[in-house]
Amino acid sequence: MKLEEILGKIEPINREFCTIAQARLDSLTKPQASLGRLEEFAKRLVAITENPMPELNKKVIFTFAGDHGVADEGVSAFPKEVTAQMVFNFLRGGAAINVLARHAGAEVVVIDIGVDYDFHNMPGLVDRKVVRGTRNMRKGTAMTKQEAVRCITIGIEIAAAYTEKGYRIFGTGDMGIGNTTPSSAIAVVLTGRAVSEVTGRGTGIDDWALKNKVRVIEDSISLNKPDPSDPIDILAKIGGAEIGGIAGLIIGAASRRIPVVIDGFISTAGALIAYSLEPKTRDYMFAAHKSQEIGHRVMLDKMGLKPILDLDLRLGEGTGAVLAMLIIEAGLKIYREMATFGKAGVSNKSAVKS
Amino acid sequence: MKLEEILGKIEPINREFCTIAQARLDSLTKPQASLGRLEEFAKRLVAITENPMPELNKKVIFTFAGDHGVADEGVSAFPKEVTAQMVFNFLRGGAAINVLARHAGAEVVVIDIGVDYDFHNMPGLVDRKVVRGTRNMRKGTAMTKQEAVRCITIGIEIAAAYTEKGYRIFGTGDMGIGNTTPSSAIAVVLTGRAVSEVTGRGTGIDDWALKNKVRVIEDSISLNKPDPSDPIDILAKIGGAEIGGIAGLIIGAASRRIPVVIDGFISTAGALIAYSLEPKTRDYMFAAHKSQEIGHRVMLDKMGLKPILDLDLRLGEGTGAVLAMLIIEAGLKIYREMATFGKAGVSNKSAVKS
Repeated sequence: MKLEEILGKIEPINREFCTIAQARLDSLTKPQASLGRLEEFAKRLVAITENPMPELNKKVIFTFAGDHGVADEGVSAFPKEVTAQMVFNFLRGGAAINVLARHAGAEVVVIDIGVDYDFHNMPGLVDRKVVRGTRNMRKGTAMTKQEAVRCITIGIEIAAAYTEKGYRIFGTGDMGIGNTTPSSAIAVVLTGRAVSEVTGRGTGIDDWALKNKVRVIEDSISLNKPDPSDPIDILAKIGGAEIGGIAGLIIGAASRRIPVVIDGFISTAGALIAYSLEPKTRDYMFAAHKSQEIGHRVMLDKMGLKPILDLDLRLGEGTGAVLAMLIIEAGLKIYREMATFGKAGVSNKSAVKS
Repeated sequence: MKLEEILGKIEPINREFCTIAQARLDSLTKPQASLGRLEEFAKRLVAITENPMPELNKKVIFTFAGDHGVADEGVSAFPKEVTAQMVFNFLRGGAAINVLARHAGAEVVVIDIGVDYDFHNMPGLVDRKVVRGTRNMRKGTAMTKQEAVRCITIGIEIAAAYTEKGYRIFGTGDMGIGNTTPSSAIAVVLTGRAVSEVTGRGTGIDDWALKNKVRVIEDSISLNKPDPSDPIDILAKIGGAEIGGIAGLIIGAASRRIPVVIDGFISTAGALIAYSLEPKTRDYMFAAHKSQEIGHRVMLDKMGLKPILDLDLRLGEGTGAVLAMLIIEAGLKIYREMATFGKAGVSNKSAVKS
């Protein structure tokens, strides 16, 4: 199916199911709305799934890995080979995302969508490589339009496959040395803010390197002139393979009514591409957390998303998404498992007034 | 042991163990400090327990229940009999705290420390009743000094008993119709703020009832004249039994080097009593969340505590504490389970510079 057809299939969430969910939430043995955002999460899950009693039995985080030609410009604190080294670490279960996914009872699926390394069909790794690293966007376009569309299509296909396998909530994640640079560039073009307002220290660069990073992004945008009204053009010229995969995953999730938890800065750049292609995708998104990266809030605001956690995270991989899943799931369990006033023999507030 | 002796046993946490923990955190396969507050939680657990590799195997939430004479003044949206009805709900597993504790793998212990109902040694309920509800503080002192000390002592004894049973992290919780009123009163006396600045809508009162609640608190303070330098005097005159139990639990936890997660508004009033008796108790506290109650932040600031979650909760019972436990535990698992740079063969940042 073509991208336009998939985008056309995405519907807004059904407000009637919000009403159904609200009625149940208000019958539970607690003051109305006293569980705040937990209740909001439950309501949105009911509306997304159009199921008055949804379950999230199978949870999965997709960590898309890709390299970036622009890493040659000294924009990261870590050497480029760390992308591939971390893929090995993911597959051995030693990375932060593995630890937190075990804690949350979620699976981790690692996708090579653009790593500059030949993994030779390594067991456990999903091989959907589109590029061996993007090209250096300071010297030309990072990807061709065809490559950008291919990345999005892969995300859509993965969303479809895991929906078929019975997974009921997705989380996004990323690995790619240098990838805060294209993410900031996307934020600039899609929010209209200055480069310095949306560019941070990534994995931990110093003041000099931060100034250089800002210049690299400015140069890349003025050289490539991405069209702010064409998200595919932006993704191709100044984006990244993993960012495209994440955008596609979100589009695929929305088209199949699967809730999707957006991790931090890089994932939100992917979400902003998806949102720009079809704003209704937003109804299916949960913003996991507020990253330390300064440009993150700007992108969330653009989409009207309010982060669930604020723990000063800035790691990526899906670490924020999997923690937020635990909180979203808590909201659903409240909705599913709490006793009602009637069943528990507890006097409701209205009883005082009558 | 006398209260003064227990308070004298509390020591500040050991900074040497913070250094040990920091060294390990910096050896793990992630940019330094990129897991933000999760790393801070792990470090503090190491320092609290003086154990370079702590575990939190057994987790427990203590929900202290008590009634309040001041409920007769129309300060709550719910009738007073709901306190006892909710105790039954807790024991049957139908309340929010039960659902969330199951989600987090924690146990719930419900203590009758002051409910105005005779439970006749009901199985599953810890019977440590000090009063059958406090007296109406608008007409006199809520408790005697002896009763207030008894409540604190019970909290200390429970902390001791559950440390012996092998529990390694405690959470506080409360149930008591009307108990935001004494909590606000405590906040006024111990922070010096105006009543209107620290008094909110509790379970959901309207504008008229809120004005009345402010007046009731003002009247109670001017009638009883609690001594701001004497936390026991404050607890007795304008406090509550469950608030005293929570204060005692925190003191007991600190004296035995057990981390304790402070729930919302009422628990924080208990924490402020404990802190005023011995400021070193603060080293053992984790502030679970930022409540919707307006006085909550004021009390947290007084103790220098930064909340972990901000989900617009205002239910109590320990609901915020048990969710925060999941996040604290995530930090500890990061610390315990992640691979190091050396072991995983991942290049560290310093490798770039050398």
